[in-house]
Amino acid sequence: MMKQFAVLGIGRFGFSLASKLYDLGYDVLAIDKDEERIKAIADMVTHAVQADTTDIDTLKSIGLKNIDCAIVSIASDINASLMTVLNVQELEIPEIYAKAQNEQHAKVLHKIGIEKVFLPERDMGKRVAHYMVSNKILDLIELDPEHSIIEINALEQWGGKSLQDLKLRIKHGINVIAIKRGDELNISPVATDEIEAGDILVVVGDKRCLAKIKTDDGR
Amino acid sequence: MMKQFAVLGIGRFGFSLASKLYDLGYDVLAIDKDEERIKAIADMVTHAVQADTTDIDTLKSIGLKNIDCAIVSIASDINASLMTVLNVQELEIPEIYAKAQNEQHAKVLHKIGIEKVFLPERDMGKRVAHYMVSNKILDLIELDPEHSIIEINALEQWGGKSLQDLKLRIKHGINVIAIKRGDELNISPVATDEIEAGDILVVVGDKRCLAKIKTDDGR
Ligand SMILES: Nc1ncnc2c1ncn2[C@@H]1O[C@H](COP(=O)(O)OP(=O)(O)OP(=O)(O)O)[C@@H](O)[C@H]1O
Ligand SMILES: Nc1ncnc2c1ncn2[C@@H]1O[C@H](COP(=O)(O)OP(=O)(O)OP(=O)(O)O)[C@@H](O)[C@H]1O
Ligand SMILES: [Ca+2]
Ligand SMILES: [Ca+2]
Ligand SMILES: [Ca+2]
Ligand SMILES: [Ca+2]
Repeated sequence: MMKQFAVLGIGRFGFSLASKLYDLGYDVLAIDKDEERIKAIADMVTHAVQADTTDIDTLKSIGLKNIDCAIVSIASDINASLMTVLNVQELEIPEIYAKAQNEQHAKVLHKIGIEKVFLPERDMGKRVAHYMVSNKILDLIELDPEHSIIEINALEQWGGKSLQDLKLRIKHGINVIAIKRGDELNISPVATDEIEAGDILVVVGDKRCLAKIKTDDGR
Repeated sequence: MMKQFAVLGIGRFGFSLASKLYDLGYDVLAIDKDEERIKAIADMVTHAVQADTTDIDTLKSIGLKNIDCAIVSIASDINASLMTVLNVQELEIPEIYAKAQNEQHAKVLHKIGIEKVFLPERDMGKRVAHYMVSNKILDLIELDPEHSIIEINALEQWGGKSLQDLKLRIKHGINVIAIKRGDELNISPVATDEIEAGDILVVVGDKRCLAKIKTDDGR
């Protein structure tokens, strides 16, 4: 059977998450105390229920029993967020995620046992900053806890050398996925391609190796 | 000289963006009408000024003249967002970006001439949805207007074939960056690597080609 999701708090983030999960074919229960938000999402999820998620009896009566995964996406009101998380934990939902308002809120959520906390505004703020200053290419994408895709500025000493000369894979544990030069994007770099000063490389690799290069890189 | 940025509206997104730009070595002017927000960010940007950005005279007196790029990150109050954008346009700042509350707001921002509009909560909501249902791998990263990195489920008919047999580059215009199988992530796929049913491929390619594969893929 398909996994069943509950999204508690239908703000902008919760709305997007709940409707996308439903789009992807999953059962989604959306809960918000605000009637307008529930009306807005009613046709885009399996069930939409108006309720105060800080009230455990209300949650029990809604019947969250079959839910495999709950996402608490209430952030501005930290008290409501924490109470809701504790309630969902008491209902023994196997997977629980939460949105946080800031790092302090995130820390508390980790402490009470939330494995993965989302900080959408913070993360996107950082990404947009990189996007703006880095020739409009993306910075950091996490593939799994050990590996990332990032873009790096070609080191000065790389200029005029080919990828096979540079041995980035052997020396730094990274693979070059794409080379950006001005407005040109080469998405099929071959061993004989030469790097020029000013190039931006999109690379995939082990995070510790990448961090080392970023440091060397002086940025 | 380094580019000079102004961030108007220091909510969560604006805070993260402004402080990250400053971290990256740029001059950043932060403006918010809320004194608390200005106090909070004062040490993390070049200048922090308390002001109502809907008031053009105030903005003129702050002296936004040397700013190369302004980001309006006021979203909940759509009127304040639009008034602020019009003000910044009147000051002839060369590059202007804005955060939007929802797609309707984004549409209006595009209409009045904002080239790139950010919807952080919507975008991260979608990304987190994909993350939750797709073996915890990332979905879609835009490299430039034509090219993306996405993850796709290996088509059933690909099972048991090697990358060189599949000729994904020639047939579909995509390059495989990584292969995810259960908990294993292969970030250096070679031509002789075989695909198995259930594999997730991280690929880079032309967006139209990628869209075609995603459709074929039936998701
Ligand atoms: N006790 C509660 N019970 C149910 N829903 C609640 C409760 N408290 C807040 N909400 C709902 O959660 C949603 C998100 O709340 P909040 O404003 O805290 O989030 P946010 O992080 O600012 O959201 P956004 O994703 O829009 O930036 C709102 O629609 C709100 O009505
Ligand atoms: N007229 C104004 N002049 C200056 N600052 C303003 C004005 N209106 C709103 N702001 C500020 O903009 C910031 C962001 O506002 P808003 O709450 O609309 O954004 P948001 O999209 O909900 O933010 P977040 O990124 O936290 O999710 C707030 O700190 C607010 O004080
Ligand atoms: Ca928000
Ligand atoms: Ca960067
Ligand atoms: Ca860069
Ligand atoms: Ca996916």
